Amino acid sequence: MKLLKGGAMSEETWKTAVTKVEPNRLLLRGYRIDELMGRITFAQAVFLAIKGELPGENEARMIDAMLVSSVDHGVTPPSCLAARTIASTGSPLNAALAGGILAISRYHGGAIEHSMKVMEEAVRRKREMNKSHEEMAAVIISEYKEKNKRLPGFGHRIHTQDPRTIKLFQIASDLGIAGEYVGMARAIEDAMEQGRGKRLPINVDGAIAALLCEMDFPPQLANAFFILARIPGLVAHVFEEQTRMRPMRHINTKDHEYDGTAERKI
Amino acid sequence: MKLLKGGAMSEETWKTAVTKVEPNRLLLRGYRIDELMGRITFAQAVFLAIKGELPGENEARMIDAMLVSSVDHGVTPPSCLAARTIASTGSPLNAALAGGILAISRYHGGAIEHSMKVMEEAVRRKREMNKSHEEMAAVIISEYKEKNKRLPGFGHRIHTQDPRTIKLFQIASDLGIAGEYVGMARAIEDAMEQGRGKRLPINVDGAIAALLCEMDFPPQLANAFFILARIPGLVAHVFEEQTRMRPMRHINTKDHEYDGTAERKI
Amino acid sequence: MKLLKGGAMSEETWKTAVTKVEPNRLLLRGYRIDELMGRITFAQAVFLAIKGELPGENEARMIDAMLVSSVDHGVTPPSCLAARTIASTGSPLNAALAGGILAISRYHGGAIEHSMKVMEEAVRRKREMNKSHEEMAAVIISEYKEKNKRLPGFGHRIHTQDPRTIKLFQIASDLGIAGEYVGMARAIEDAMEQGRGKRLPINVDGAIAALLCEMDFPPQLANAFFILARIPGLVAHVFEEQTRMRPMRHINTKDHEYDGTAERKI
Amino acid sequence: MKLLKGGAMSEETWKTAVTKVEPNRLLLRGYRIDELMGRITFAQAVFLAIKGELPGENEARMIDAMLVSSVDHGVTPPSCLAARTIASTGSPLNAALAGGILAISRYHGGAIEHSMKVMEEAVRRKREMNKSHEEMAAVIISEYKEKNKRLPGFGHRIHTQDPRTIKLFQIASDLGIAGEYVGMARAIEDAMEQGRGKRLPINVDGAIAALLCEMDFPPQLANAFFILARIPGLVAHVFEEQTRMRPMRHINTKDHEYDGTAERKI
Repeated sequence: MKLLKGGAMSEETWKTAVTKVEPNRLLLRGYRIDELMGRITFAQAVFLAIKGELPGENEARMIDAMLVSSVDHGVTPPSCLAARTIASTGSPLNAALAGGILAISRYHGGAIEHSMKVMEEAVRRKREMNKSHEEMAAVIISEYKEKNKRLPGFGHRIHTQDPRTIKLFQIASDLGIAGEYVGMARAIEDAMEQGRGKRLPINVDGAIAALLCEMDFPPQLANAFFILARIPGLVAHVFEEQTRMRPMRHINTKDHEYDGTAERKI
Repeated sequence: MKLLKGGAMSEETWKTAVTKVEPNRLLLRGYRIDELMGRITFAQAVFLAIKGELPGENEARMIDAMLVSSVDHGVTPPSCLAARTIASTGSPLNAALAGGILAISRYHGGAIEHSMKVMEEAVRRKREMNKSHEEMAAVIISEYKEKNKRLPGFGHRIHTQDPRTIKLFQIASDLGIAGEYVGMARAIEDAMEQGRGKRLPINVDGAIAALLCEMDFPPQLANAFFILARIPGLVAHVFEEQTRMRPMRHINTKDHEYDGTAERKI
Repeated sequence: MKLLKGGAMSEETWKTAVTKVEPNRLLLRGYRIDELMGRITFAQAVFLAIKGELPGENEARMIDAMLVSSVDHGVTPPSCLAARTIASTGSPLNAALAGGILAISRYHGGAIEHSMKVMEEAVRRKREMNKSHEEMAAVIISEYKEKNKRLPGFGHRIHTQDPRTIKLFQIASDLGIAGEYVGMARAIEDAMEQGRGKRLPINVDGAIAALLCEMDFPPQLANAFFILARIPGLVAHVFEEQTRMRPMRHINTKDHEYDGTAERKI
Repeated sequence: MKLLKGGAMSEETWKTAVTKVEPNRLLLRGYRIDELMGRITFAQAVFLAIKGELPGENEARMIDAMLVSSVDHGVTPPSCLAARTIASTGSPLNAALAGGILAISRYHGGAIEHSMKVMEEAVRRKREMNKSHEEMAAVIISEYKEKNKRLPGFGHRIHTQDPRTIKLFQIASDLGIAGEYVGMARAIEDAMEQGRGKRLPINVDGAIAALLCEMDFPPQLANAFFILARIPGLVAHVFEEQTRMRPMRHINTKDHEYDGTAERKI
């Protein structure tokens, strides 16, 4: 990823390569924002802002699918609980969202970054050692077993066959995005199944990790995608808290019930 | 806006209408998330999550254009300064974003909500009093003049002809979104020019306010759109701070310089 | 309260009256910090920083008692739930505290500010109208009854005789701090009892509000005292979450149990 | 430090040892809060809440001096800049404080934690290897030199003889708190001077680190003390921003001036 121009860090001059601001003229990564408007989607603008270049059409679709996959996961994730708890005290929307984002960290969303690092290293070593995906997967698994650690990005506490993962990989395959990293993820999944006799499938974090690797994002930006994707869900929850629930209610995390629209087709 | 089912607020049962979570099945506002993936853009998912219904195609394009218009505005806005200041101390990305969002408040981004309230009231009174846009605009302006208050959503400290506003209204017109609220905004702009002898044009906040009114969003959700739109810009700035600048530098807000890509065409 | 020097707000020159920083010399509100150290307590420094003057000895003791009264209230307050939820995701201490503070808002802690405004107005009108506490209390209560609103600072969802309130007023009385505002709070309490036939006692928020009025703090600083007081409690909870609980546990807000030290004497 | 009772982490039962809450009876670490009020200072309550036991009288004074030393350091620290930037947008006090706290991290305040770890390890190895402070200091310094890393807790960008450090160590000595950790800090300072030919004195972070080690606090709580100490300073700055400065001013970090009270004696 080469989004940074220039080089040495300096204190004296604050250089920025994101946006040029002049009266009546705004350049985002070199493009006039008013020329981008109406011609690119928000997902493309996300890619452009973060990476410095416009995505190809297939990358843009991949980003859209990734963001859609993570918009919400109900009331139980800690980001939702933190945001709604803060909203329940009368704090404004921005404060509740800030609190929700503070809960998107190592153990909630953080598996994406961790998993990207594992996959980056696995693919790098695979290339250096001239191994197949299967051989490299076997090495990785035995190393984690030895250290008695869990590989991030596999298994889910609710879903055994996460429909989001299946769809993400299918779209990635259709769009020609799936490459070495997806291959590595699948090889690890298969090898673990052989070792354990039971499938511990790639979860949505692991799938997103593989796809961000394919699109050459650095692991330290993984959290940005999860946070961005989850904002609309958090907004919906905060608004629901503000308009449906009594302020300062005792939030009972074990007694919630879905009463929204029944399943429907697009 | 009828996104809420049910009625009275209750403490005892926590009802939610956002997402139904079951093993291997996730319904966002009634739609299976895996069926949405690959078929709708993130902007459409934003609309769905917040409003409870999928947008029409034109609404979806409008949302995309609105979000793209506000992705970034350089290093000077307080949200960017707060986020980069926090990042400069070694705090992680999510903390820096949370701090940036805490700065999106009454005077930064907040004009959208304020302006929506003004326009909602103006259009409501216009209908009740059976007046034209021009007549109602004249009433509003004289009321604000009397109270010696500024109408929110007009004028900008940098841009005299904000290209984002021009483009937003053009797109809204092309898509058939522009209606009574855009008409009211324009009528106020014209009437102010006649009164002052000088144009104080609708700014990007005012334009977004009019468009959110046209799409029937409530004012208390205005900030959600600005926050969401600005996240990618903040991510780009935080990453730039983390990778280009020295930790704990003296942040000199008067000495910054753009050294990114020169102007280019899409 | 005259803590501010100078006058008109200006953009161009950033004037500050809090701390003068020079090499090897730090003046907090005019006092060398190294001369303050060892001679004043932290509570006195709090008063000095916020108000610009050192407190008298009795005021210092009052501040100490107020802060001690609000150090913690167990796991159920939203500030604790937000902080522990954020901590449970692996976020660092400062992020968890920030989230806790975001939950100290209108309905949690905010009654202090609201109550200060009520008492300030009541005492001001009492003086202007030359009424007794009892007469003024009767007016206030009938006004709130008419508007069908609750007076802030009275009643508690757990405590019927809050031992903290009793002790705060006793200390205030011993120290000669209790004056017109405490008198007004008590008169309202008595008058409500006569009207309702049942006591709705001043709660700890109401008591702190009366005492902050007595010491001439403005209502918009009320929240500062509650936040400051609650930080050590939140620290204790976050540390407990980090060291005793499993990351990403399902936080069950209905199933908690105290297993700390049994009651003991000082 | 043995503040935790019980043992294994559990998901099912949420055990807490901080505060027992019953109607009209609140136990903080076993003591009735109303019995603590008026008898202990806030600094003592801080110690009790965090550590689970009341401090001795000398420890209480040490905590007071430590907290007083760090109440404020003017407008330039990032915590102040973040808090004032957020306040300048009209965000409420709690949001501005939360933003300030998010900036108290690795490079701002974080040296205390880092320094505690260095000192803990140094003292542990000194004991194990049966060395003098001087011998151990020489080992530590040569190790850091070899790794080309800076020892945390030494040197300051403004102060060459930080008056707060001098006073902290003097008070620690008077109170009998200064022991092996202070001895180690001083030995490192002396040895560095001999090696470099120039004094790089212990800074206030290093001094607080040594004293927290002496009082047996774990490094991961270091930040709690700095955050707590800085809250009153941040409150003063936020209130000044809200009452003296224009909202959305351009915050010029290079053009600020102290116009508060001139130096005075206690």
